[in-house]
Amino acid sequence: MTNYFDYAASTPISSFVLDAMKPWEVNNFANASAAHQAGRACAQAIQNARECIADKVGALPSEIIFTSGASEANNLALKGVAFKHLEKKGHIITSSIEHKCILNTCAFLESLGFEVTYLSPSPSGQVEPADVVAALRCDTILISIHHVNNELGTIQPIGEFGAIAFDNDVLFHTDAAQSFCKCDIDVDDMDIDMLSLSGHKIYGPKGIGALYVRDARDSGLVPLIHGGGQEGGLRGGTSPTPLMVGLAAAVQHYPTTVSEQERHFLDVIENYKWVRNGGAHVVSTTWSLTFESDDEVKRFTQEHPWLISQGSACNALSNVASHVLTAIGLDEALARRTYRISLPPHHINGD
Amino acid sequence: MTNYFDYAASTPISSFVLDAMKPWEVNNFANASAAHQAGRACAQAIQNARECIADKVGALPSEIIFTSGASEANNLALKGVAFKHLEKKGHIITSSIEHKCILNTCAFLESLGFEVTYLSPSPSGQVEPADVVAALRCDTILISIHHVNNELGTIQPIGEFGAIAFDNDVLFHTDAAQSFCKCDIDVDDMDIDMLSLSGHKIYGPKGIGALYVRDARDSGLVPLIHGGGQEGGLRGGTSPTPLMVGLAAAVQHYPTTVSEQERHFLDVIENYKWVRNGGAHVVSTTWSLTFESDDEVKRFTQEHPWLISQGSACNALSNVASHVLTAIGLDEALARRTYRISLPPHHINGD
Ligand SMILES: Cc1ncc(COP(=O)(O)O)c(C=O)c1O
Ligand SMILES: Cc1ncc(COP(=O)(O)O)c(C=O)c1O
Repeated sequence: MTNYFDYAASTPISSFVLDAMKPWEVNNFANASAAHQAGRACAQAIQNARECIADKVGALPSEIIFTSGASEANNLALKGVAFKHLEKKGHIITSSIEHKCILNTCAFLESLGFEVTYLSPSPSGQVEPADVVAALRCDTILISIHHVNNELGTIQPIGEFGAIAFDNDVLFHTDAAQSFCKCDIDVDDMDIDMLSLSGHKIYGPKGIGALYVRDARDSGLVPLIHGGGQEGGLRGGTSPTPLMVGLAAAVQHYPTTVSEQERHFLDVIENYKWVRNGGAHVVSTTWSLTFESDDEVKRFTQEHPWLISQGSACNALSNVASHVLTAIGLDEALARRTYRISLPPHHINGD
Repeated sequence: MTNYFDYAASTPISSFVLDAMKPWEVNNFANASAAHQAGRACAQAIQNARECIADKVGALPSEIIFTSGASEANNLALKGVAFKHLEKKGHIITSSIEHKCILNTCAFLESLGFEVTYLSPSPSGQVEPADVVAALRCDTILISIHHVNNELGTIQPIGEFGAIAFDNDVLFHTDAAQSFCKCDIDVDDMDIDMLSLSGHKIYGPKGIGALYVRDARDSGLVPLIHGGGQEGGLRGGTSPTPLMVGLAAAVQHYPTTVSEQERHFLDVIENYKWVRNGGAHVVSTTWSLTFESDDEVKRFTQEHPWLISQGSACNALSNVASHVLTAIGLDEALARRTYRISLPPHHINGD
């Protein structure tokens, strides 16, 4: 797929990752909860994977809860906290440009009686720390704001959100599906209490992700999937050893250099007239471009039949402007000329 | 792992399955929700997989909701129905020998105000249809009883449970993690409204499973994982195409003949003194054996250093008698002499 420019939707699985998974698919396929030696070897491999992921964000291994992906991690974070407060309910602060899995979870929690404030971003796509402060209430139980926006590439000031949350004794969760490995993250420095990540955005397998939970054991988080005691009781289901090991391998082998494809893109895109959305503080691998005219769109898409998205993958099959583009003020006509071009992710120095 | 006799805990992934997954890991790694051609090809592969799984149980493709495994499917079934009745609550009938993921979900629902009847099995491990009838109340919203018990191999009369549920206008869910592909299942003939299944019990991948939901679209089931509209809105998260295709390949290539290992086991086990638990109606690949004495256990385990479990994998790391063995009347001493030996699963004629 040489014409694939939709890496923010999903990445290939790297050969490092496939190789790391193989032994746990073919040689040792035991259940990691089994007491026998094969089970113990799986449990050890999972523990190593947990350590690797924890290290990447400055967490403890016991604070990493494997999930099926960032969607489940986000659901676990939000519902897990909300269900602790099911009796008295409470208030949640988020933004209007979160991923649909956050927004739909919030809508569900509203249907149960929770109240949610959806902060609008600035026209550049930034969620303002001052708005977070202004939204705080004495019954606020959680602030959940993503790190990097999946449609715009905008980097949110999560360290500032974390500090606000910390100062006000409120939990802070961030959806880092689009930033994990790409941007440097330290859960202590940034006062992050929970963080969601996903394998298939970083050359890892689809169907695996994790939620970092500060002091997971004592967090009182209510499990989303009750089970047989796996993941410290916070997430049931037979541990998918190959996927967990694969996720860690993806972290270990995450590229640190700019791809050929990114260079090629930069050369190509010069020849067209567009405005880039998402402000100054964006990752270099996700570009939201509004072309100057329908003709310019036509010229670009004909000359470069790339696999790209309008908005994100989740919004791809509906014809309306995505909630993110609407939130930064694009009307239907502008949204129709807007494309997300996303390049092979790599570590970005600085942010 | 030639000495592996713990197939009820997990199976290897077959080479058919690995081969079927490969193209979707390496060649086309798109997000199945993407509108471009690569995304559409993934969506088509997933649709084919859905059809294959639906066919196996006499369902429609639109009634198959992919999940991360049977634990998630069980949680989705129970919580999905319960949350429809969150205001008025209601009553659930299950058995005391369900998998921990059912029992812990029920305990959670009790903490929310639902009432749960846990039916005790007969000493042979059978849940009695008459007990289900006796437990029915006018506020019963769900009957959830598993098909094949994971520790005993006992086959439950799910067709009878289904008929009772149907006659009384109550939903019937069955956890078929240990029976799917092994036993013949027809959701219409058996009046099953929801059915959970898992990939890694049938030579498929770990981390994938499904919930069959009758008339899924109109079921009103409350999602466990809210997301971007995947799985008909009932289960969010980027579709793991390789795992879904792998699950279907496992169904397609499920063995129909008795394994060499089963024959070997039958020869070996003749030489020891034991009683088989689980009654007359058991699958041929899961054996719960209580050895006559500690010496007999010692003789067997020394002569055959097989990888086997006491109870199930989930209970493996605790030293207490499993809830299943306790429920069929085994005391601590008997439970300590009891082992589950489980053989490569294959289709079983008749049941
Ligand atoms: C910002 C963001 N959050 C959450 C998700 C969902 O992640 P997953 O596919 O692992 O469920 C995605 C991508 O799909 C995303 O871009
Ligand atoms: C009867 C039964 N239900 C549920 C499960 C859980 O399935 P999964 O590992 O796919 O979550 C298992 C096995 O682990 C099982 O044997």
